[in-house]
Amino acid sequence: MPTILGQNQYGKAENRVVRITRDGDTHHIKDLNVSVALSGDMDDVHYSGSNANVLPTDTTKNTVFAFAKEHGIESAEQFGIHLARHFVTSQEPIKVARIRIEEYGWERIATSDGNSKFIGADEVKHSFVRKGQETRTTQITFDGERWEIISGLKDLTVMNSTNSEFWGYVKDKYTTLKEAYDRILATDVSARWRYNWTSDDERMPNWEKSYEQARKHMLQAFAETYSLSLQQTLYQMGSRIINNRSEIDEIRFSLPNNHHFLVDLEPFGLKNDNEVYFAADRPYGLIEATVLRDGVEPKIPVDMTNL
Amino acid sequence: MPTILGQNQYGKAENRVVRITRDGDTHHIKDLNVSVALSGDMDDVHYSGSNANVLPTDTTKNTVFAFAKEHGIESAEQFGIHLARHFVTSQEPIKVARIRIEEYGWERIATSDGNSKFIGADEVKHSFVRKGQETRTTQITFDGERWEIISGLKDLTVMNSTNSEFWGYVKDKYTTLKEAYDRILATDVSARWRYNWTSDDERMPNWEKSYEQARKHMLQAFAETYSLSLQQTLYQMGSRIINNRSEIDEIRFSLPNNHHFLVDLEPFGLKNDNEVYFAADRPYGLIEATVLRDGVEPKIPVDMTNL
Amino acid sequence: MPTILGQNQYGKAENRVVRITRDGDTHHIKDLNVSVALSGDMDDVHYSGSNANVLPTDTTKNTVFAFAKEHGIESAEQFGIHLARHFVTSQEPIKVARIRIEEYGWERIATSDGNSKFIGADEVKHSFVRKGQETRTTQITFDGERWEIISGLKDLTVMNSTNSEFWGYVKDKYTTLKEAYDRILATDVSARWRYNWTSDDERMPNWEKSYEQARKHMLQAFAETYSLSLQQTLYQMGSRIINNRSEIDEIRFSLPNNHHFLVDLEPFGLKNDNEVYFAADRPYGLIEATVLRDGVEPKIPVDMTNL
Amino acid sequence: MPTILGQNQYGKAENRVVRITRDGDTHHIKDLNVSVALSGDMDDVHYSGSNANVLPTDTTKNTVFAFAKEHGIESAEQFGIHLARHFVTSQEPIKVARIRIEEYGWERIATSDGNSKFIGADEVKHSFVRKGQETRTTQITFDGERWEIISGLKDLTVMNSTNSEFWGYVKDKYTTLKEAYDRILATDVSARWRYNWTSDDERMPNWEKSYEQARKHMLQAFAETYSLSLQQTLYQMGSRIINNRSEIDEIRFSLPNNHHFLVDLEPFGLKNDNEVYFAADRPYGLIEATVLRDGVEPKIPVDMTNL
Repeated sequence: MPTILGQNQYGKAENRVVRITRDGDTHHIKDLNVSVALSGDMDDVHYSGSNANVLPTDTTKNTVFAFAKEHGIESAEQFGIHLARHFVTSQEPIKVARIRIEEYGWERIATSDGNSKFIGADEVKHSFVRKGQETRTTQITFDGERWEIISGLKDLTVMNSTNSEFWGYVKDKYTTLKEAYDRILATDVSARWRYNWTSDDERMPNWEKSYEQARKHMLQAFAETYSLSLQQTLYQMGSRIINNRSEIDEIRFSLPNNHHFLVDLEPFGLKNDNEVYFAADRPYGLIEATVLRDGVEPKIPVDMTNL
Repeated sequence: MPTILGQNQYGKAENRVVRITRDGDTHHIKDLNVSVALSGDMDDVHYSGSNANVLPTDTTKNTVFAFAKEHGIESAEQFGIHLARHFVTSQEPIKVARIRIEEYGWERIATSDGNSKFIGADEVKHSFVRKGQETRTTQITFDGERWEIISGLKDLTVMNSTNSEFWGYVKDKYTTLKEAYDRILATDVSARWRYNWTSDDERMPNWEKSYEQARKHMLQAFAETYSLSLQQTLYQMGSRIINNRSEIDEIRFSLPNNHHFLVDLEPFGLKNDNEVYFAADRPYGLIEATVLRDGVEPKIPVDMTNL
Repeated sequence: MPTILGQNQYGKAENRVVRITRDGDTHHIKDLNVSVALSGDMDDVHYSGSNANVLPTDTTKNTVFAFAKEHGIESAEQFGIHLARHFVTSQEPIKVARIRIEEYGWERIATSDGNSKFIGADEVKHSFVRKGQETRTTQITFDGERWEIISGLKDLTVMNSTNSEFWGYVKDKYTTLKEAYDRILATDVSARWRYNWTSDDERMPNWEKSYEQARKHMLQAFAETYSLSLQQTLYQMGSRIINNRSEIDEIRFSLPNNHHFLVDLEPFGLKNDNEVYFAADRPYGLIEATVLRDGVEPKIPVDMTNL
Repeated sequence: MPTILGQNQYGKAENRVVRITRDGDTHHIKDLNVSVALSGDMDDVHYSGSNANVLPTDTTKNTVFAFAKEHGIESAEQFGIHLARHFVTSQEPIKVARIRIEEYGWERIATSDGNSKFIGADEVKHSFVRKGQETRTTQITFDGERWEIISGLKDLTVMNSTNSEFWGYVKDKYTTLKEAYDRILATDVSARWRYNWTSDDERMPNWEKSYEQARKHMLQAFAETYSLSLQQTLYQMGSRIINNRSEIDEIRFSLPNNHHFLVDLEPFGLKNDNEVYFAADRPYGLIEATVLRDGVEPKIPVDMTNL
């Protein structure tokens, strides 16, 4: 046979599971999008169509929903760990399970206020509005022995309206850009960080707290860095996380430079004193880099932040 | 000539203008997407291609950016009023101007906390993160005499995890739905409300406050209504606004019923006590209605909430 | 009660029905996205939550799928007519039914060629690739007596690389645009045309042929018009249809002017002889107009082409 | 320093260049979306913000447009090769250039027909309609010595309405799926294939012909395979290309299983003889695999087909 099969994986993608937990009248939501990818002894199904080793993708879907009941959803990471362990340990042909999860945040609707004429309005504890900012992500991979957990977020749009410059760059025959000493810096943060937890023998991180802290450090580093380049800001965002969160060893960013061009108002006899900008769509700068703890080996794939 | 020209309009759509206002070190953002549509004596350009009456769409774009400097952006509504007035009063062939604006909200990045080692971190006042919830909208129409202002929002996703039922409906030969006595009710609110301000002689509403209050009343009504149908909830959301905001006479909603189906876990020996749901994409119920102050004439187009 | 209910409608949106017809080994596909909107005596469900007049949206969904079996799908228009008639005539409270349908085209995969070693490859008649160009649309409205059929298409992207000019326009203080004597003209056609068939007593148009012909005439008019403005091209596209298709009385277009800017290559010592363009996203010109048969009354809503 | 910089790259993404070539009155279009990613000696800009080694992303954008004039666009691959070579050979700090290109196809508008009253209509050679099917892709990577060219396509939607089965799979406690002996098989093909051309010393493939042939073989294999699983079909699609195109050594697929569920019409007293299907959105099966020439080393990243 002149052709052979290489890496392969399969499963059910984008299972939209919503889990409600009722603590008396107070309800809690976990809202996830779960994708399962399994790999192992799957040569036959590719070569001959024999499904003898194939757990149907429909079954992987059922398992996601059943596990939401059986184990609850304490965190996206913990939920993915339950799923990955199950697939690898319960089916002999399955050697590796990779679970990807997106999580959508919700906050409570504030129903009580001084003007409310609705008795008991302040006791409504089952009403929510979707936060709408970033999507939280995680990827759990298990090969039967070691765990790899890469969590992160995407689509967190931020902007500094000053404290950003760009000058002193290389100029070749195609360079026309003018140097900037006070510009807007805006980006949609896509970040993925790898935990150094890899074994059931180690103490597991507090996934919820770790996420909140990593997010906070990134935002603060973005805000507090006086930026000479988006690369510099990116590095500050990454090192702030590595320095403050011992459970995280590596982080990769994909940061589009969302250009805000100062509009030339001189033809209309007006001076634009960094007040009026055109927010451009395309093209955009794209700055991507990994920041890691000194001495550790990088493992986050280069394109993972673009998925 | 066997064919004739009917209603027509033209202009530049989706001008992405960002306006920074600097109050010392404290910066403020207005982030708008402005679309201009002009109509009037435009027969010739359609019949013969003569542009003698045509103000270029490029000029309408320039005007948007110039006005962001000349008038500032106090609110989306006020900005649209400046623009509409200008086009109708400065160009004889232009009889009606319609300005549509989307506004994206931003909030400040909190940079100070007890653990911060960055001196002065609490003084960063130029860093923002996009709110990411609803998109605020407005449509300003001016014919040289009267104003019509229809504001609103879209993509505000809300959910009640209980206090929703659906039963007692018509059953025909195609009906298989089981009655529900405790279900999730979730929707993406798209709402447009019409102000009764129509003339420069009248006192203009406080657009910013009115928006915040209308949004608040809608959310509270959604949360506080024990729902027997999404139609009932819709009507409560609308009447709550009309009753509390005298400046608003009419509101139209388009509310998808974002189905969350209780997953049947019995095949796996599990009981699903309103805990695990599948969030479906399509199809979805779609409930649309106008609620208006008794005695006023409805004017919001039926499909406006779908744009 | 200080608030009242205005226009309202409800139903199941975006039912994705695929109908396979088997003519021996030769299969045929109809691939539709069907949305149902019903209106009538629905005050109670809004005011009190009583569903006594409400046929569930779930039932409207079931009806779509059942009718695909019972009636087949000869055309999107004919299918919508079956559905609208059913809802209005079978449920007393329902006074008006509006069915909106999107149709996605498919073409056969060519499986036979000179190099094929697969015997009988040319006889594969059940394999399809999605066409991927425009989405065909129709809206069927029935009030128990009269029909209104508005069909059309959207997202048909076209470009003329020459034979387009733009000059002789109004110049005000905000005008900076340079006149153009040879530019690219590109747009995404969104068009909706209204048939003059309104009664079961009249002979029904051949919906499939009418669509193909209307599409052809629009494309030919776009290609063959030497354009002094996009408005002129629009009018030619519309009048070509009205003049050639007696079953169509009115057509409305929404045509974005997809700007292709000639790139200034002079800084690099290069001359750009209408060869290299930057395709911009936003802002874009937006030209909208109705063309209609002389003497008929316009009925297509102004914003219908934007839905 | 406790943190260090890992892999990094930067450049301008999504440069939308349209190149018109005029062969007398006959025009030709190339419509590309070009993204540049450069890497090399970029530590300083991350650590200190020094841009001394940074060619601005604005310059990489200018270069794309200038090269469209200087070199023309013979094919996306050839254009990317020009760009990658330029960046690596002209700037000492740049060690690797990666160019990603999406290409959108156009076809001519047929303007002549028997009914045409427009003289010379058959001579219009500058009018185009966008094909709208797949997006063609390529990625060119150059490190100063060796080339890696990975081309492909995405969003090519295909369907077999019969000749697909799925049975004989693993059943565990979460399995409820019924075996299928005649089902619809539908997917959106995302494929990336790697050429074995790596050096300027070797004869370059005919990129345009190779693309057309690879696409054709994939489609034919999809149509002609009697499928017992989507994995089997995938493998046939890949091996057909490897066996027929000696210039291609490896191909990776990401194939969603676009479920078309047979609708249960029994509650309505109807029999569904493989005629009426519900096309579901999410979740979907996702089948991914690499097929490669025996003896070669796989190099296409696992997630590349998902970008």
